[in-house]
Amino acid sequence: MTEPLDTGPLDVPKLQRRLADFAAARDWQPYHTPKNLVAALSVEASELVEIFQWLTPEESTRVMDDPGTAHRVTDEVADVLAYLLQLCEVLGVDPLAALDAKIDRNERRFPAP
Amino acid sequence: MTEPLDTGPLDVPKLQRRLADFAAARDWQPYHTPKNLVAALSVEASELVEIFQWLTPEESTRVMDDPGTAHRVTDEVADVLAYLLQLCEVLGVDPLAALDAKIDRNERRFPAP
Amino acid sequence: MTEPLDTGPLDVPKLQRRLADFAAARDWQPYHTPKNLVAALSVEASELVEIFQWLTPEESTRVMDDPGTAHRVTDEVADVLAYLLQLCEVLGVDPLAALDAKIDRNERRFPAP
Amino acid sequence: MTEPLDTGPLDVPKLQRRLADFAAARDWQPYHTPKNLVAALSVEASELVEIFQWLTPEESTRVMDDPGTAHRVTDEVADVLAYLLQLCEVLGVDPLAALDAKIDRNERRFPAP
Repeated sequence: MTEPLDTGPLDVPKLQRRLADFAAARDWQPYHTPKNLVAALSVEASELVEIFQWLTPEESTRVMDDPGTAHRVTDEVADVLAYLLQLCEVLGVDPLAALDAKIDRNERRFPAP
Repeated sequence: MTEPLDTGPLDVPKLQRRLADFAAARDWQPYHTPKNLVAALSVEASELVEIFQWLTPEESTRVMDDPGTAHRVTDEVADVLAYLLQLCEVLGVDPLAALDAKIDRNERRFPAP
Repeated sequence: MTEPLDTGPLDVPKLQRRLADFAAARDWQPYHTPKNLVAALSVEASELVEIFQWLTPEESTRVMDDPGTAHRVTDEVADVLAYLLQLCEVLGVDPLAALDAKIDRNERRFPAP
Repeated sequence: MTEPLDTGPLDVPKLQRRLADFAAARDWQPYHTPKNLVAALSVEASELVEIFQWLTPEESTRVMDDPGTAHRVTDEVADVLAYLLQLCEVLGVDPLAALDAKIDRNERRFPAP
């Protein structure tokens, strides 16, 4: 019997499960030390920067107008998120709670005028 | 009358709303071009790398044992996610759907043995 | 009459001149703002990281044993240096003097045992 | 008898010797694997990006007008060069020859109009 297809809405734990299954099926876990995952995360973030490095600020606001560039941007966003979620998984960090708490702290640190 | 407190579970759209409100209240949107946001994202990813740069692979698996380092790691994870979500917001990219589609492509590209 | 070939030893000012001539001949100077050059520098540094991201510390010490990888490493080193020298040129910074002064400061900051 | 002061012009091999002596005197060589040095290099490159991340292209051309920012930029340039030269030392790469050969290749790859 196969597992029924999960047709509910996408969320972070579901994606983390898919990523963990994907890595396990290929025996990639030994490579996924926190040190290696942060390196891979920074490399993917730089691949996003590479798309924008010679653009003016105005040109950068229009990157999604070209379908090829839009696809490349979306692909790199996915890669950054993939490594961030895998890092959080191996470290036991809840990324949404971490960000929520950080916004709380920033609201105290930079009071709105 | 004030808005009732949202006590539902955290999710990505809710965090994107908090981030957008935070930036708008401080007039920071003019700085938030896609080009600047990807630069900030890569800087935050490097601040994560900095925590791990001199550690052995084994030491890197134990970073959460020290409360001070654990806090620093969690804080940088939040910063990376903050800029990634703000980038997605200004570009109109759905990060969870992007990652889900990318895992689909990777399953075809790297078939499990 | 063509310029006589410069057969003296390589040095930083000579390479900066070659880089400036190269960019000028292709009308690339408008792209070479300090902001863009530091982005390009960080992208090239990440391309070096990419070569090493999944290697163990021991494997990383042997990257030059494989001719293909050795060529890739040497090529990325050249790219990092190219953007660093072009950045220094547009900012009027002398990179060797900057490093010499920094080592002086570090000797005071981290006294040898 | 102490070594006579070297008062000749600064060059890359001299700086590499100072950096190697500095690291050896503090027993830092075990940390200086190629993998760690490229991570440190990319972190320092990002610290340069951080200075420029919210600036317009025009503002970025004027960073050296403010003495505090000029000092910070010069300091980060020194850090990038320090890790690049240490990486080249442990890998046996000659950075100036690598760049010279790269410019030769680029002249064939991107012929001037």
